[in-house]
Amino acid sequence: MDYTYLLYIAIILLFTKVLGLLSRRVRLPQVVGALIAGIILGPVCLNLVSLDTSPVLSNLSEIGVIVLMFSAGLETDIAEMKKCGVASSIIALIGVIVPLVGGALVAWGFGTANPSLSCSEFLQDVFIGVILTATSVSITVETLKEMGKLNTRAGNAILGAALIDDVLGIIALTIITSLANPASGSILIVLLKIVGFFAFALLFGVLFHFIFNKWTERTEENQRRFVVVSFALCLLFAYVAEEYFGVADITGSFVAGLVISSTSKTKYIAHRFDTLSYLLLSPIFFASIGLEVVLENMTPMIILFAIVLLVVAVATKVIGCGLGAKLCKYTNKEALQVGVGMVSRGEVALIVASKGLAMGLMSDTLFGPIVIMVVITTVITPILLKLVFKEKKNKADIPSEAVKS
Amino acid sequence: MDYTYLLYIAIILLFTKVLGLLSRRVRLPQVVGALIAGIILGPVCLNLVSLDTSPVLSNLSEIGVIVLMFSAGLETDIAEMKKCGVASSIIALIGVIVPLVGGALVAWGFGTANPSLSCSEFLQDVFIGVILTATSVSITVETLKEMGKLNTRAGNAILGAALIDDVLGIIALTIITSLANPASGSILIVLLKIVGFFAFALLFGVLFHFIFNKWTERTEENQRRFVVVSFALCLLFAYVAEEYFGVADITGSFVAGLVISSTSKTKYIAHRFDTLSYLLLSPIFFASIGLEVVLENMTPMIILFAIVLLVVAVATKVIGCGLGAKLCKYTNKEALQVGVGMVSRGEVALIVASKGLAMGLMSDTLFGPIVIMVVITTVITPILLKLVFKEKKNKADIPSEAVKS
Repeated sequence: MDYTYLLYIAIILLFTKVLGLLSRRVRLPQVVGALIAGIILGPVCLNLVSLDTSPVLSNLSEIGVIVLMFSAGLETDIAEMKKCGVASSIIALIGVIVPLVGGALVAWGFGTANPSLSCSEFLQDVFIGVILTATSVSITVETLKEMGKLNTRAGNAILGAALIDDVLGIIALTIITSLANPASGSILIVLLKIVGFFAFALLFGVLFHFIFNKWTERTEENQRRFVVVSFALCLLFAYVAEEYFGVADITGSFVAGLVISSTSKTKYIAHRFDTLSYLLLSPIFFASIGLEVVLENMTPMIILFAIVLLVVAVATKVIGCGLGAKLCKYTNKEALQVGVGMVSRGEVALIVASKGLAMGLMSDTLFGPIVIMVVITTVITPILLKLVFKEKKNKADIPSEAVKS
Repeated sequence: MDYTYLLYIAIILLFTKVLGLLSRRVRLPQVVGALIAGIILGPVCLNLVSLDTSPVLSNLSEIGVIVLMFSAGLETDIAEMKKCGVASSIIALIGVIVPLVGGALVAWGFGTANPSLSCSEFLQDVFIGVILTATSVSITVETLKEMGKLNTRAGNAILGAALIDDVLGIIALTIITSLANPASGSILIVLLKIVGFFAFALLFGVLFHFIFNKWTERTEENQRRFVVVSFALCLLFAYVAEEYFGVADITGSFVAGLVISSTSKTKYIAHRFDTLSYLLLSPIFFASIGLEVVLENMTPMIILFAIVLLVVAVATKVIGCGLGAKLCKYTNKEALQVGVGMVSRGEVALIVASKGLAMGLMSDTLFGPIVIMVVITTVITPILLKLVFKEKKNKADIPSEAVKS
């Protein structure tokens, strides 16, 4: 028997934790540290851990991302989303379309599509756009909270738009990965399958939600069974999505999270999944992203691509969301604040990118630039936020309740 | 990519949970249900889940048993063990030796050793004895608690002896698996390596315990780091034991558990590992034991072996521990109570057996009889306990405090 995977997991746990804590010291999310840990452990630097010799790491990383998306679904408050209103929806929608088009144009301009991959070059270009759509709002929320600006008009618009952004991102990802799935068939069949999946999810999901809610409300004693059953549902949805509908497994687990969300036990369940995540699964997932970064392919062209991609990633979110905010009659300053608040990409972009890498939607040469883009957008967001929220006793700082007409 | 493992894990979670809850209904530990779930899912019955097609399950099962033994170490209170005194030590020691010899004699009598395995037939016979040494006291504790008899002289003796029994069992397992390891070399080298491992563990462990304790006492805030570092230590000890000392990985993780035990954060850490265990790892471990049971090999001879093994398993513990108790001046009735309280084998015997199966210390034909032995000893222990603790206003029932001179 080979026990190397035990050593690998131990090393990954230690490195991601130490670097995660260091990045928290400088007020960055621990994810950045975990990513850097992976880069250090991988071929770029120490070459200590190899995914190829321990396939179990890839499986654990896959379960890890499934659980991350399940947790994201769990935390999505559907009732809250309904309340977000028109403004947030418009901000989110334009804030998804502009980066989508921008990213695709950059990829097309640089000719980054790899003809030897199974997916068409058009899909590969669009996929770079899809990666740019995902917003990770956690760092923005933390920064605004610290500055006491979360409860401003701009702060509320960011929160609502980020919620809708997540769902739009999942839809974009679902469509493109379904199209890329060689087993899917023609576009019509792909779309039918996607509709079929959501029909299945809606029917089975609503039914399950109802039964689950009745069941969990009845018993107060040992709650472990609820957590275990939720996990089984999460894995089943992931499996059924991939196997029967050609839809990404993470779409399945996200939807399973929605099904379990807003029950009386959601908080308890989310807490347990949190433990499962931080103790084993998510360090392996984030480290394995860093492990897949290779610098040997870093030609001057790729470096230029990385820089342009980063600029476009920042600009398209600021412009897209800002435009949306302007359309909804926010002031110029507020529109800029909303746009900047949506710049950070974080874990969702990584999840999407690693999915694309596994599906042949992206060549591994591009993985480095994307990781760089994610790290830098995450690092600069709090700095930019402090700039655009600078006090001038401006009315943008009046708590939104006071402004609401 | 193959996603079947997601389906398998979902099925295992559901089946082990449902059968676990059913076995709790009839006042048996959930482990029994999880085992039966594995048997039902495996080749014996439905053939729904296969370990061969999803190697990740075997890896998760291995991590699962490592974590189980780590938790066992965590819960071992070394200070309590020191207080156990001579009586518990004698009961445990004789209670380990008698089943060890008895099991080996049964295996030898039946000629169960398989000459085509890499280990000598002598080692294979002794290994059956080693399996019979392990006591799982949890069901006894629960039964006695319910009957209000935990705090009797016999109850206390059982608790203390079970604690020491665990450590003796680990030592027996360590010696036999080290001898069976083809890379270990001669007996002298094997023993030197075992001593070397414990020397390493003592030196590094005491140092680590000291530093860890200082560290955890200092900070009250976010405690996740303690759990993650503990897990890394657990995996490192497991890896180092196997790789550098030829000692079983579960010995390594048990010792790592001892190192982390009795710190100010032990309870918090144990709780988090509990979640990791029940939510993913231990269902896979226990189900995979059931999955490895094959009935095709159930010749009349093997069935007879199963029956004799069961009888010997019960008789040797009752006689061994009872003898120990008698030597320590317990009454006949108390000695019988102590012996019966140690009959249940439970998870430790399964952990040992599955380790032996993987190392070629046992042919898979014997796995069925051993699982049967474990299930039945666990099922009958509460019944036997109720019989031997029957009220006759006997002085054995006087709480031990009152008896202590």
